[in-house]
Amino acid sequence: MKILPSYSAFARILALGSLIVLGAYAQAQAQTDPLPSWNDGPAKQAILTFVKETTTQASPKFVDPVARIATFDQDGTTWVEQPLYSQVMFAFHQVGVMSAKDPKLKTIEPFKTVLSGESAAIAKLTVPDLEKILAVTHTGMTVEVFQKSVQDWITTAQHPRFHHLYTELVYQPMLEVMQLLRANGFKIYIVTGGGQDFVRVYSERVYGIPREQVVGSTADTTFGYDKDGKSELTKVSKDVRVDDKTGKPIGIHLMIGRRPLAAFGNSTGDQEMLEYSQDGAGARLMMLVHHDDATREYAYGPESKVGTFSDALMAEANKRGWVVISMKNDWKRIFAWER
Amino acid sequence: MKILPSYSAFARILALGSLIVLGAYAQAQAQTDPLPSWNDGPAKQAILTFVKETTTQASPKFVDPVARIATFDQDGTTWVEQPLYSQVMFAFHQVGVMSAKDPKLKTIEPFKTVLSGESAAIAKLTVPDLEKILAVTHTGMTVEVFQKSVQDWITTAQHPRFHHLYTELVYQPMLEVMQLLRANGFKIYIVTGGGQDFVRVYSERVYGIPREQVVGSTADTTFGYDKDGKSELTKVSKDVRVDDKTGKPIGIHLMIGRRPLAAFGNSTGDQEMLEYSQDGAGARLMMLVHHDDATREYAYGPESKVGTFSDALMAEANKRGWVVISMKNDWKRIFAWER
Repeated sequence: MKILPSYSAFARILALGSLIVLGAYAQAQAQTDPLPSWNDGPAKQAILTFVKETTTQASPKFVDPVARIATFDQDGTTWVEQPLYSQVMFAFHQVGVMSAKDPKLKTIEPFKTVLSGESAAIAKLTVPDLEKILAVTHTGMTVEVFQKSVQDWITTAQHPRFHHLYTELVYQPMLEVMQLLRANGFKIYIVTGGGQDFVRVYSERVYGIPREQVVGSTADTTFGYDKDGKSELTKVSKDVRVDDKTGKPIGIHLMIGRRPLAAFGNSTGDQEMLEYSQDGAGARLMMLVHHDDATREYAYGPESKVGTFSDALMAEANKRGWVVISMKNDWKRIFAWER
Repeated sequence: MKILPSYSAFARILALGSLIVLGAYAQAQAQTDPLPSWNDGPAKQAILTFVKETTTQASPKFVDPVARIATFDQDGTTWVEQPLYSQVMFAFHQVGVMSAKDPKLKTIEPFKTVLSGESAAIAKLTVPDLEKILAVTHTGMTVEVFQKSVQDWITTAQHPRFHHLYTELVYQPMLEVMQLLRANGFKIYIVTGGGQDFVRVYSERVYGIPREQVVGSTADTTFGYDKDGKSELTKVSKDVRVDDKTGKPIGIHLMIGRRPLAAFGNSTGDQEMLEYSQDGAGARLMMLVHHDDATREYAYGPESKVGTFSDALMAEANKRGWVVISMKNDWKRIFAWER
C-alpha cells in the first residue's frame, strides 16, 4: 500500500505550503508596516499600542468609533514652522500683491518695511505691526477671493532653505500616523493657531483632511449680496478667536464637542490641548514633537520665536507621561522627497 | 436528436428565470423605496432627482463626495417646534431643578413666574426674561454637567399634546431623507438656532448625526482645572453667537467651510441658509417644510411666535424655485409611531 508514504508526502507538501504561506505572511507584514518612516522605539510603540487598545473589540480600552477623535497641531507638528510660519510668509507676499493694485500701501508702515524685503527690519516688526499686516491681507474680501489668494500662493511659494513648496514640507512620519488612525476609524482634525480659512485651502490635498475638520484661529464674516444679488460672506477683523493655548480646547469643544483620544503638538501652545485630551477617561495618546535635528530640519527650544518648547513643557510631559518624539532619533525620514 | 427541444426547454427556463429575476428585482426596488413615508409628488421627486444627479458619475452635475454637504434646520424642520421650542421647555424645567438646590430663585423674577406654572403669565415673559432664564440654566457649569442635565431631561420629558418623548417627535420623512443622502455619501449637518451643546447630546442617537456635525447657537467656554487638577471647560454667557438668519451661513462657513448642496428649513430663520446653498455652482436642493396639517401636527404661518413662515418667504421660495413641502399632502406618515 502506498497510502502512508503518499500521506506523508502530502503532509510534507502541506508543511512546506504553510511555511511558504507563513513566509509570505511575514513578508506582507513587513511590507505593510504602517509606520515605515519611524524607527523602532518607544514613540512608534506608543502609537501602535494605542491604536490596538482602542480598536480591538475585546480590549478593555476599546472605543466606539464615534468617539475616535485625534487632533494634530500643524506648525512644527505636521510641517516645518521655521524660519517663520508659512502663513506669515503668505501675508508678506500678499502685501506685495495688494500694493501692486493699491500703490499707497508702499508709503505706509508696516507695509513699507515688508516691501523693502530687508530681513533685519522685518525681524523687528512688532505684534501690532503683524496684526495690521494680517488684517489687510486676511479681511475685507469674500471667503472665495481669500481662498483663491491662498491657493495661488501655496501652489507656487517655496521654502527659503529647502527650495520645496511648503506643502512638500509636511512630515512623512505624521502623515503615516494620520493614515494609520484613519484606517482604524479615527476622525482626524488639524487644530492650529494658524488661520482656519488658510489651512482649509490645502488640508484635503495635503493631509486628506476635509475643510470641516480644520479648527483654527478665526474672525467673523458678514453675510451680504453681490451686485447680481448672489449671497456671499465677507471676512472682517471682528470677533477674533485665537486657537492657541487655552483656545485649543475651547476650539475643540466648539468645533468637535468631545475630548480627543489622541493629541499631537510641539509647543507650549499645545499644552492645554494635550491636557484636555488626557483628562478624558480611557486610553489616551499625547505626543510632542521635539525639534532636535538641525541637520535634516531644525533644532530649537525655549529661545525660539516660533514653536516654543520650554523646559516647563518638557517637565510637564515627563510628569504626565506624554511621549516626546525626537525627530533625530524617532524619524527615519522626515520628508517624502528625502533620498 | 433531442438537442433542439432540450435547448428550447433550456431557453424557456432561462427566459422564465429572467422573468422571475426581473420580478424579484422590481419587488426589491418597491420594497426599498428610500422614501416610503413620502407620497409621490414634486417634493419626493425633487429629492430623488437631486440625489441621482449629484451622485451618478456620468452626470454633468456629479459632485465629488468631499463636497456633498447637506444641512437641516431642526425645530419645525426635523421635529415638532410647537407649542414651544423644546429647549425652552428644558430651560423651564431646569429652573425647577435649580430652585430645589437654590431656593432663593423662587423669590426672584422671572424664575418665580416660570415656577408658578401659570401659562398666561409665562406667555407674557419678555425676550430679556428668556435670556435670563437661558443664562441661568445654560451657563456656570462644566460642559459635562450641562450635557448630563440635558440627557436627564430629554430621556424623560414628554410633549404636552402628543405624550411622547420629544425625541419621538422627529419627522420620519426627514429621517428617510437623511438616510438616503448619507447612503449616497453626503455628510449631514443640523444647522439650528437652538443651542449647539443642547442638540449634540442626542443628535447621534436620534438623527445618526455625530456631535461635530451639529452647528447651533453658542456661547464661550473658559478653560480651567478642577480641584484634582483635571482640565475642564465651563460654559459662560460671553460671546454669544446666534445661529439664525444670517447667523446660519456664517455658522456654516465657520463649522463646515463650504456651501451646502442641499438645505432644509421651515421658517424665515432659514432663508439666508437656503440662499447661501443655492448660490453655489451646480445642482442644489432647497426645501421648506410648510406646517399645514393641524390634524396630524400643527398648521401655522406668519402669526406664529415660533417658526414663522411669512408671505415674503413663500414669495421668495416661488421666485427662487425652492421646493415647499406640504406636511399634509407630501407626508404619508409624520412620526415613526403613527399607525
